Amino acid sequence: MSNLKSKFFEVYDVLKAELLNDPAFDFTDDSRQWVERMLDYNVPGGKCNRGLSVIDSYRLLKEEKELSEDEIFLACVIGWCIEWLQAYFLVLDDIMDNSHTRRGQPCWFRQPKVGMIAVNDGILLRNHIGRILKKHFRDKPYYADLLDLFNEVECQTACGQMIDLITTHLGQNDLSKYSLDDHRRIVVYKTAFYSFYLPVACALLMAGENLDDHSNAKNILLEMGNYFQVQDDYLDCFGDPEVIGKIGTDIEDYKCSWLVVKAMELCNKEQMKLLNENYGKDDPSCVAKVKDLYNTLKLQDVYLEYERKSYEKLNEEIEAHPSRAVQAVLKSFLAKIYKRLK
Amino acid sequence: MSNLKSKFFEVYDVLKAELLNDPAFDFTDDSRQWVERMLDYNVPGGKCNRGLSVIDSYRLLKEEKELSEDEIFLACVIGWCIEWLQAYFLVLDDIMDNSHTRRGQPCWFRQPKVGMIAVNDGILLRNHIGRILKKHFRDKPYYADLLDLFNEVECQTACGQMIDLITTHLGQNDLSKYSLDDHRRIVVYKTAFYSFYLPVACALLMAGENLDDHSNAKNILLEMGNYFQVQDDYLDCFGDPEVIGKIGTDIEDYKCSWLVVKAMELCNKEQMKLLNENYGKDDPSCVAKVKDLYNTLKLQDVYLEYERKSYEKLNEEIEAHPSRAVQAVLKSFLAKIYKRLK
Ligand SMILES: [Mg+2]
Ligand SMILES: [Mg+2]
Ligand SMILES: [Mg+2]
Ligand SMILES: [Mg+2]
Ligand SMILES: [Mg+2]
Ligand SMILES: [Mg+2]
Repeated sequence: MSNLKSKFFEVYDVLKAELLNDPAFDFTDDSRQWVERMLDYNVPGGKCNRGLSVIDSYRLLKEEKELSEDEIFLACVIGWCIEWLQAYFLVLDDIMDNSHTRRGQPCWFRQPKVGMIAVNDGILLRNHIGRILKKHFRDKPYYADLLDLFNEVECQTACGQMIDLITTHLGQNDLSKYSLDDHRRIVVYKTAFYSFYLPVACALLMAGENLDDHSNAKNILLEMGNYFQVQDDYLDCFGDPEVIGKIGTDIEDYKCSWLVVKAMELCNKEQMKLLNENYGKDDPSCVAKVKDLYNTLKLQDVYLEYERKSYEKLNEEIEAHPSRAVQAVLKSFLAKIYKRLK
Repeated sequence: MSNLKSKFFEVYDVLKAELLNDPAFDFTDDSRQWVERMLDYNVPGGKCNRGLSVIDSYRLLKEEKELSEDEIFLACVIGWCIEWLQAYFLVLDDIMDNSHTRRGQPCWFRQPKVGMIAVNDGILLRNHIGRILKKHFRDKPYYADLLDLFNEVECQTACGQMIDLITTHLGQNDLSKYSLDDHRRIVVYKTAFYSFYLPVACALLMAGENLDDHSNAKNILLEMGNYFQVQDDYLDCFGDPEVIGKIGTDIEDYKCSWLVVKAMELCNKEQMKLLNENYGKDDPSCVAKVKDLYNTLKLQDVYLEYERKSYEKLNEEIEAHPSRAVQAVLKSFLAKIYKRLK
């Protein structure tokens, strides 16, 4: 584990200990054990990319200046708040999607004795963010901005979930309701705000910036988030399962994937019929027919062209950004995802 | 409808219109309709006691001074935030309890096409509070305190839910795990903070007070909240169904009610056996046996004695409070609930 990552995990232990002794609540032994188990199960098991990128971004914004211990600690704290936010969304998303596994283990709500208590656990995770921020940032001049930011991004994510749920989950039998516009709107709200914009926005606040001055960086980051999800959809079908660590099931799951949306844009009436008949069926021969159609439509080439253009456009926009330091942050994000294979 | 109540409902329409046009999200027609229907179904259907009490409390804190239109509007806005918070908790609580009806209609998650989307709707309700407060209070000196207050009280409520869920819902076959202490802890955290303390605390902030100076009032309000729930438990069994508007089912539902906890404190071994055999059974003859035992133990008298003592103690504490205005607020709360029959 890198030095930074081990520092980051030390901070997790600090935050957990504080939450388990929060004076706002008179814990019983049972409830303290419950929360500890729930946190350990749901919060630290991911790749922590979002959390770690707060620290990276803050470091780049401060340019050559060495960060103090205190600054690193606070950047880690905010990073963990984003991981807590993610855990909150995932716990509840798995309930809504009736999923089975998450990060290689059963979903939290499927654990014995948990069940629907997981809904309240999701709420607790959400509430912990407010407790953590109050404890460590209450006296900062940007405290209210930080709360506003987390509230706004959480709201945008929930709105993204809503349109995902009502457009793609309701009445799963009409592909024609999926458009490229819908796909983009869902992705930007459901994923890009909290995964791409939020870490950078937090770092900007810590660096004393006013977020109103950074709508340009925000738009670039949201565009990167969209590009990231298109990659995700592409890799689900065309990636190497050995490399991405799972076998994609977007076709079986009737997902509003970039591939199917693009396919509908390009296909003729007959191909549309084939798509309607075979998309979203848990039958290998149906899946194979969909993949054949994707090949006939040369979706791999269409994707490569999309990737090239996105990258070019993002790069141009970043180059045009007036601040060197912000440019460095955006470039570091883009470098992490461009041409990724997993 | 009283003048104040109709004013209060006008403010609901204003807030709803703002939320449906929130620039933070790019609404589709479908999603706007979904949110509007969800709000109308879940937010305004209650008695609005909590929301209205913000305005009452603020008026009393300002003593004789006439409130301006703007002050009334802002007090209504905060009042609605508490109603939104309540709606959020109820939508999710009904899912966790697998309930059927709420406020005389099917629970939201039981509506056609809603189902588990209700989890996300609960989140949206919660997020609306942040949006509303930002829109109307961002420039107030007490803005950060207001956010902290809502965050802390929400967290305490979720902690109360947690101990309720893990002590009373897990393994429903051991009454002995219910103690008077547990009952009180659950009630104070799950109900009293947001129903009794929060409205007054909001009014205090609006009046320019520092909440750290009011821990005394807080304790009195939490005690009142506890007393209110004991009444609720009492009325569930001994109230007039015509007056309270429903037939109580706490005995059938194996609720950790004040009555059963008190009964266990008073009963002998044999009576404990009877309680164990008959509590929580959906069989009228079992319910009747439990009620007979409550009568044998004279729980009605025990309750009346509890009520008398609570009232006396609360009154004394209120009288001892140094501020006339705060006294008036606390007295008005107490008057609303003392000896209530519904
Ligand atoms: Mg999911
Ligand atoms: Mg989902
Ligand atoms: Mg995917
Ligand atoms: Mg319930
Ligand atoms: Mg409940
Ligand atoms: Mg009751």
